[in-house]
This record gives sequence, C-alpha cells and structure tokens, in this order.
Amino acid sequence: MEGKGISKAVISRLPRYFRYLGQLRDDGVERISSHELSERMKVTASQIRQDFNNFGGFGQQGYGYNVQYLYDEIGKILGLHKTHRLIVIGAGNLGQALTNYVDFEKRGFIIQGIFDCNERLHGRKIRDRTILSMDEMEDFVKDNDIDIGVLTLPKEAALKVAEQLISYGIKAIWNFAHIDLHLPSDIIVENVHLSDSLMQLSYNLNRHEL
Amino acid sequence: MEGKGISKAVISRLPRYFRYLGQLRDDGVERISSHELSERMKVTASQIRQDFNNFGGFGQQGYGYNVQYLYDEIGKILGLHKTHRLIVIGAGNLGQALTNYVDFEKRGFIIQGIFDCNERLHGRKIRDRTILSMDEMEDFVKDNDIDIGVLTLPKEAALKVAEQLISYGIKAIWNFAHIDLHLPSDIIVENVHLSDSLMQLSYNLNRHEL
Repeated sequence: MEGKGISKAVISRLPRYFRYLGQLRDDGVERISSHELSERMKVTASQIRQDFNNFGGFGQQGYGYNVQYLYDEIGKILGLHKTHRLIVIGAGNLGQALTNYVDFEKRGFIIQGIFDCNERLHGRKIRDRTILSMDEMEDFVKDNDIDIGVLTLPKEAALKVAEQLISYGIKAIWNFAHIDLHLPSDIIVENVHLSDSLMQLSYNLNRHEL
Repeated sequence: MEGKGISKAVISRLPRYFRYLGQLRDDGVERISSHELSERMKVTASQIRQDFNNFGGFGQQGYGYNVQYLYDEIGKILGLHKTHRLIVIGAGNLGQALTNYVDFEKRGFIIQGIFDCNERLHGRKIRDRTILSMDEMEDFVKDNDIDIGVLTLPKEAALKVAEQLISYGIKAIWNFAHIDLHLPSDIIVENVHLSDSLMQLSYNLNRHEL
C-alpha cells in the first residue's frame, strides 16, 4: 500500500528526517510545523510536505506534526521496528570498527558474528564476538537466521562471498568492497564506496580552486 | 571551463566510471565502445555519452574510447592528479581504519596525522602516524598544508571541531559524524552517514518482505 513506487530520492531522504525527528524528540519538542522543520533541515517546507504525502501525509494539522508519532511512523517505514541480524565478513580494521559500533544496535541492527579467511584472526574477540572461519559461515547463517551480510573484504573476494551468502539464504548485502556486485534482482544491495565519496569531495575541492 | 554547471547526479557517477576504466586498463583493454562500457556498467550507452558530453565527449570515435586517455581525463576532472593532505580527527575504530587504509594514498589522498581528545591514546601509533592531542592540531594543519579534515568523532563534537579546522584554513570536510554540518558555503562537505545507508537497506528489505 504505502511506499509503492516511491522514488529513490524520497527514500534517500527518509533516514535524514528520522535523524532530525529523533533529535527533536530527545530535545523534548512535541509538535513541529513543516515550516520549522524546513528551517532546521535546510530544505523547503513544500519538499517536506511532498515527501510526506507519499506516505499519506502523517496527519499534519494546523498546529503541525506530532514529533513522536512522525518519528515512529518513519521508523516503521524504514523497517526499524524489526530486528535485523547481521554478520560481518572481513575482520580487518573496517570490519572491526563496524562490529564495535554500538549505535547500530540501538536501531535494531545486531551484528551476530564476524568472519575472516585469515587463520591468525580466528578465536580473537571483537566485543564479545569471536572471529570465526569462513567454513563456519553456512551453519552460523542458518542457525542464527541472519538476514544481512556486511562485506568488508577485498574486492577480489566480494562477489564469491556474496554469492555464498545468498545460497545460505541471506536477503541483503551491505557492501563496503570497492566493486559493484551484480546479483539477482531479489537481493538488496546497499553500497558504501568510501573511495567514491572521497573522489566526489576531491572533485568539488578541485572545481572550487579553479 | 569544463565542469561548469554539471549536475550532482553526473558528478556522483564519475568515480564509478573512473573505477571501471581503471579495471579495464589493468586488464589490458586499450579501447572500448560506449556500448561495451554500458554492458559492463549496467547503464545505457546513451547515459554514458550524455555524461561524457558534459566534458567535451572525450573524443569518442567510430572505434570507441581510448581507455587510458579516458581514465586519465576523468582522473583529472576528479582532481586526482593532485596530492591532497588529510588529517583524521577521532582515533576510534573508524578513524584508525581509515588511517590504516592504504588505497587512499594510491589516489593521492595522504593521511598526514591523526588526533584525539583522549589523552590515553596520545603517542600511540597508527601505521607510522602518532596520535596527537587536539592542542597540536592548529600548528600541524598550518605546517603541513592540510586541506581536508576527516571527522570520525561523536556528533556532539563535530561542529565545533569543523569550525576550528576552517579557522586554521582547511577547505574541505569528510564527515563521518552522524550529523549534518551547516558550514560556510565555500567549505566543501562530503558526508558518509553509515546509519543512513543501513536504514535505506532496511527500507528496501522491509518493502521486499511485504
């Protein structure tokens, strides 16, 4: 029903609304008008109303939106009322950093396990997770009902591991490997290409200097 | 001259072209048609030609683009022919991971220093960089001609540190703190909001399950 045919651009803005509304709620704000929200977020009030209309408008009244309600509703649209179980593949610096990052858990993203092909890392602990071998991955995914695989490994290994994970039943890949994964269309892939981000920064810096 | 008024969408695609062309070059491919490139990249050939036309078209002939030339030209547009000097502020897991990541250096992004407010970390080494105190930041930025600050610190501290960096002459911020930084318009800000990315993944997973 709601959410059908919503554009990628709208979807990409939802986490930001969620973030601002969470801050407002933490600050004790109970209601906010689209005008006030627009000033805080540096987007137009009309953009906000248009975005929200994709989901039925969230009952804006003359006196504004109910912050807690709007926060909860956007959270539900983002699937944050559910718990997601993740594993990290690649226990290098980035994999360890993500595993150590506790804020994901507050949003319901629980990193259940961490895997690496390097034998010397096996048995070492990241928080209370023991780094496991790749051979243990299949049973772990099935036994723990893992739904998201996080790839923090070299690009050469990423596609093979992604395909393994899919064969074990994983539905989504959060990909930090520096490669585009061409996977079956029913698999959700979200990429974080850090080098691409740095190159965009460099482009803008370079333009600015000319 | 070139690059004026180029849309954000085009700019966001440039790093991806650069990545694919680098791979082609490494594979020994000398020429490629927009049609072949489009098949590899899963975008239309017309999109590729339109994107490239923003920069004069790169001399596509009947027999395709020269891969090395195109790679070099896009690299120049991205400012990758220059060396950028970075500091990382926040020596937690993510700051350490970025400092340890050697691939950035290959693209000319040299992480010169790493800073943290936690005294217990001062003097510790990440690769051959010693973690320094925040008091040492101003002199370091000026003495080493730093142009990019990388923020891997809690959101509460991010704005204050960004403003400090700008006062020391830094022109660009690569921001990993979970907050939008509203800074003067001549400062380049590139955000990597990991939680936002994870929420988009969650949205798509949730939609998919309905």
